Amino acid sequence: MDKIPVAVLGATGAVGQRFIQLLADHPWFEIAALTGSERTSGGKYRQVCRWVLDEDIPETIGEMTVRDSDPTLPARIVFSALPSRVARPLESAFAEAGYIVCSNAAAYRQEPDVPLIIPEVNGEHLSLLERQRATREWQGLIVTSPNCTATGLVMPLKALDQAFGVRQVFVTTLQAVSGAGYPGVPYLDIIDNIIPNIPGEAEKIQQETKLLLGKMVDGERQSAEIRLSIQTNRVPVIDGHTVNMAVKFDRRPSPAEAIDVLAGFRGSEGTCDLPSAPEFPILVRTEPDRPQPRRDRNASSGMSVTVGSIRPCPLLDLRLISVVHNTLRGAASGSILNAELLVAKGYL
Amino acid sequence: MDKIPVAVLGATGAVGQRFIQLLADHPWFEIAALTGSERTSGGKYRQVCRWVLDEDIPETIGEMTVRDSDPTLPARIVFSALPSRVARPLESAFAEAGYIVCSNAAAYRQEPDVPLIIPEVNGEHLSLLERQRATREWQGLIVTSPNCTATGLVMPLKALDQAFGVRQVFVTTLQAVSGAGYPGVPYLDIIDNIIPNIPGEAEKIQQETKLLLGKMVDGERQSAEIRLSIQTNRVPVIDGHTVNMAVKFDRRPSPAEAIDVLAGFRGSEGTCDLPSAPEFPILVRTEPDRPQPRRDRNASSGMSVTVGSIRPCPLLDLRLISVVHNTLRGAASGSILNAELLVAKGYL
Amino acid sequence: MDKIPVAVLGATGAVGQRFIQLLADHPWFEIAALTGSERTSGGKYRQVCRWVLDEDIPETIGEMTVRDSDPTLPARIVFSALPSRVARPLESAFAEAGYIVCSNAAAYRQEPDVPLIIPEVNGEHLSLLERQRATREWQGLIVTSPNCTATGLVMPLKALDQAFGVRQVFVTTLQAVSGAGYPGVPYLDIIDNIIPNIPGEAEKIQQETKLLLGKMVDGERQSAEIRLSIQTNRVPVIDGHTVNMAVKFDRRPSPAEAIDVLAGFRGSEGTCDLPSAPEFPILVRTEPDRPQPRRDRNASSGMSVTVGSIRPCPLLDLRLISVVHNTLRGAASGSILNAELLVAKGYL
Amino acid sequence: MDKIPVAVLGATGAVGQRFIQLLADHPWFEIAALTGSERTSGGKYRQVCRWVLDEDIPETIGEMTVRDSDPTLPARIVFSALPSRVARPLESAFAEAGYIVCSNAAAYRQEPDVPLIIPEVNGEHLSLLERQRATREWQGLIVTSPNCTATGLVMPLKALDQAFGVRQVFVTTLQAVSGAGYPGVPYLDIIDNIIPNIPGEAEKIQQETKLLLGKMVDGERQSAEIRLSIQTNRVPVIDGHTVNMAVKFDRRPSPAEAIDVLAGFRGSEGTCDLPSAPEFPILVRTEPDRPQPRRDRNASSGMSVTVGSIRPCPLLDLRLISVVHNTLRGAASGSILNAELLVAKGYL
Repeated sequence: MDKIPVAVLGATGAVGQRFIQLLADHPWFEIAALTGSERTSGGKYRQVCRWVLDEDIPETIGEMTVRDSDPTLPARIVFSALPSRVARPLESAFAEAGYIVCSNAAAYRQEPDVPLIIPEVNGEHLSLLERQRATREWQGLIVTSPNCTATGLVMPLKALDQAFGVRQVFVTTLQAVSGAGYPGVPYLDIIDNIIPNIPGEAEKIQQETKLLLGKMVDGERQSAEIRLSIQTNRVPVIDGHTVNMAVKFDRRPSPAEAIDVLAGFRGSEGTCDLPSAPEFPILVRTEPDRPQPRRDRNASSGMSVTVGSIRPCPLLDLRLISVVHNTLRGAASGSILNAELLVAKGYL
Repeated sequence: MDKIPVAVLGATGAVGQRFIQLLADHPWFEIAALTGSERTSGGKYRQVCRWVLDEDIPETIGEMTVRDSDPTLPARIVFSALPSRVARPLESAFAEAGYIVCSNAAAYRQEPDVPLIIPEVNGEHLSLLERQRATREWQGLIVTSPNCTATGLVMPLKALDQAFGVRQVFVTTLQAVSGAGYPGVPYLDIIDNIIPNIPGEAEKIQQETKLLLGKMVDGERQSAEIRLSIQTNRVPVIDGHTVNMAVKFDRRPSPAEAIDVLAGFRGSEGTCDLPSAPEFPILVRTEPDRPQPRRDRNASSGMSVTVGSIRPCPLLDLRLISVVHNTLRGAASGSILNAELLVAKGYL
Repeated sequence: MDKIPVAVLGATGAVGQRFIQLLADHPWFEIAALTGSERTSGGKYRQVCRWVLDEDIPETIGEMTVRDSDPTLPARIVFSALPSRVARPLESAFAEAGYIVCSNAAAYRQEPDVPLIIPEVNGEHLSLLERQRATREWQGLIVTSPNCTATGLVMPLKALDQAFGVRQVFVTTLQAVSGAGYPGVPYLDIIDNIIPNIPGEAEKIQQETKLLLGKMVDGERQSAEIRLSIQTNRVPVIDGHTVNMAVKFDRRPSPAEAIDVLAGFRGSEGTCDLPSAPEFPILVRTEPDRPQPRRDRNASSGMSVTVGSIRPCPLLDLRLISVVHNTLRGAASGSILNAELLVAKGYL
Repeated sequence: MDKIPVAVLGATGAVGQRFIQLLADHPWFEIAALTGSERTSGGKYRQVCRWVLDEDIPETIGEMTVRDSDPTLPARIVFSALPSRVARPLESAFAEAGYIVCSNAAAYRQEPDVPLIIPEVNGEHLSLLERQRATREWQGLIVTSPNCTATGLVMPLKALDQAFGVRQVFVTTLQAVSGAGYPGVPYLDIIDNIIPNIPGEAEKIQQETKLLLGKMVDGERQSAEIRLSIQTNRVPVIDGHTVNMAVKFDRRPSPAEAIDVLAGFRGSEGTCDLPSAPEFPILVRTEPDRPQPRRDRNASSGMSVTVGSIRPCPLLDLRLISVVHNTLRGAASGSILNAELLVAKGYL
């Protein structure tokens, strides 16, 4: 089968680079175009991009010319790593012009007719696309992937919610520096330090968690009725968000029951066969000193959320900790998995 | 007035070094003796001690000979930085022999007749010493100072408890590496990483918090009736424990009311005149990105607990964050302040 | 005596902040004005400045209004922490208008009639000011302080040059992140990493070293005839540049002779009585694992250069390592010491 | 072909773990036995080993029983990661009993009849084994791999020596923390810091560099006549030693000539076909800010030495910087490549 031509919008930023790294060897997709800002457009990718990943730029991509983000790209699917201030008009222009837009930006995440998807968690929310088509005059479509921290929170919550009914969640995050993009956080601010209250982050996590755990009722997505209290912190870690959580359930599970449910979680039907999907979306570690971001972030090529430290909570029911790779599962890989799901479901 | 001769037990360890640094210029106390282990005893301090603090060994102390931890030292007060496995028999031997023992070790913290003291919080618990004298055949006495994290947690809780009645506390700690002593945590384990579940720490914090906030009733100390859920984490920070907490009260205060109470807290009567006491035991920062361990740990020479990020909590009542210097207020300086309190109260 | 009113040009940057921190309690100087950019001018310092130092903004300074960098400030001396692109015209405007300009910027460091001064090293170069006055139509004057790394290199070289004649120097630097200003180096670039070749740095170090070690001959400053090979590196350290050097001399000293000369170095006559001058400009450490930036950068309030690891070199004559606090002795404190020298020499 | 059974001596240490990680999927070798200390012998590997690598213990290895280091193991080749104090007697016992010992320990590196080998550099030194057999009454043999830093230094020196004749080398190292093993360097010592003078390291680098670059003359290995001056530093980097060097040649090359020689280096004949050999043992980076340990250490799975910053030196002839992965090419992978060379040359 010929590979599907795809484009990366905002290809020179940190998330854009991850898209390129991941798509360079993708079994279904082939990078056909890259777009950048006014400053970089027209230049060779290798020359205009301040590449920040440890591995080098894939050889063939380095020679590609960066283009404007106009909906005239030789691609069927576009992955958006656009900065928030331009994502809204550009993504809709592409959708209108018939492209499938898989966005990692926040612009459309809250729209009632735009699916916010983690395939294993809520693939059935894709049915919102019918409404999207009916409402908007787009030839194409937009599907979004959630905030990186929400991903690490929601994956275990979904597994537990199915089994025990999640009611309240207490969340304290320890978020990696790469979550702030590049150049992001200065060394002088974060070395030997912790910075509380990442601006706007707690609100995003709360809203997106409720959407992701929401149910489809009569073609509409209903926000989950969950109460969350969220405290965010930036920590001196390169990649990998750690989420300390405590959960109150409809029916209190023992730690052993919770472990069984988490370790056995496979996600919505069919997703585990997608090329970027991990065999197990959740890995459970039982060592007392796990999960750790440096040692667990790369589990299943950064696609599994690692969960551990599962204990009874004296105030709510259970405490647990998850680690998610924030720029892989929590960003670029997450959007690519969404694109794979769309292809598998016949949306192309 | 002649200075009071004091000794440091376990003077070569990390906390012992802090005692020496702080006592070298103390207005009331004078270091008369240092003790070490079998390995170091008999040697010059400078030669047998692997000094780890950034500032140099105080000149005069470096030449002192390290002695055995026998209760024959030319001192009235002994500060114990003994490792836990030897603290119990040695501290009681000193107390029996008539010394005032101000201990930073955990050995006697849970004993019902041994005061566990933060002067600003529960100076009145010193009245337990009457029972200690009555029960044990000691010529001297033992007073203990709490776990470093408990100190950063209890200081704001005490202020809030007096005003609003604390009922439930949700705690997530981000603890500095120096809390593990020296050599402590290898660089290879903690750089670019977070390690959850410091062994034994959550239990200590819970028990000590209840004791510190307890009331004296008929000469007995009653544990406070508070429910706590505690998750600990080790983070790549040199000094300064960060405590994320959420609190449920008898009477819910607004953030502004809580700030007023915290900023106005002066602690038990008389303590603010002690030489090591800060003018304000709690400093409130209102910037959204504070407190931070590197920027706040040294407030008031490391003796004030800095509190900030005070917000309503959707699950309990209020969320807030405190930072405490774990080896100063949370260890050596805390014990020295206890000794000052004992002197001021006439226990010498 | 009334304090001398001074101003800080470029007061909101990282070096400007150090000037403010150091001048807030200065025995001779008093901050009378602060200047900023178009963006910050007119605002309250506390509000327009992104303060990055660990200690807080001095209370009184926070309320001052930031002004334009026009030569109409109520000050006699101005300290320049201006960015390089504006330093040249602004500093000359102030000198022309009669101010004594003590500059930490590079703009005038290479001018043949502008003294580049480390008081202990080449205070006699101030005699260039006669020529400066004769040549330029300035009512005031400009004196510059050198690059931070050059300071840590030249201090020991000067002591050794006087005694043994320095001919060749091999230099490898390990430079702290604060040397790049704020925001400076992203955490993502430098954590767990080394970055070689700080742009333009080797050239500055080479040129300034030759000037600083140069002699005054018939009213002109002659560059020292020294050959240098310099390799620079950025390392994950907050403050404190480490300079690994090897030196070839006219007369080869033993390590012991070198130590005597370095430890006995007091600098040009009179400088050690200046308020910011350390008792010893060079401290020699003989422990095998010293000097270290974190443990030695604050020696003498950051004003002494610490030297150690003095050993025979199989290729040249001696190897040694120095550590200098790059934003204190190597920047703000260095300029303040220059101002003190000018006052002491009657230039005010 | 059946795989060759191999054993790892000292399998629970940091280098031993690397051996296991690398051998778990080796095309020629199969782990048949693991040995440990008295403390760990008899236990399951997973239970007695404090595993420190980021990736997990290979599944099948975790269940193996750790054995004593007796020469009764069901293996043909043994890889020694033994601590230095026991390496000497144990390695000779294995060699005597007929095993091929590929050692990463320093015990036998200086022996005149024991090859110290980097296959691409001096594979012909294996001819020393004839003398080893003649002198010692061993049924087997010992071949050693060099110090990690020496490897990063010698690889480019060899290429340059063949072309231009190396005479003098000035070396300043910036060595990663993993070079000190586990637990190795405490976080409290190395964060925000540099520690000079790694004990014993400069001597090893000097001696081994001369041996590795030495020529075989009449069956004897003659040390290369090169003068080196070496300054070592420990830096806060996890993996990857950076070597700043300046070189004087018999015939001075231009940087471009040096680049050609380095980039074209393929090493001794036949080595590039070994399974662990990189296609190019030296990679040349021409960006001004390379090489960097975090971004270059994993080049060719950690088997290529990356060289860059090649410039004229005002004192010697050329300056350059190399980065080598100290626990892969510089330790475990290096020894495995030696074993592959021995197999290819028919020593099994």
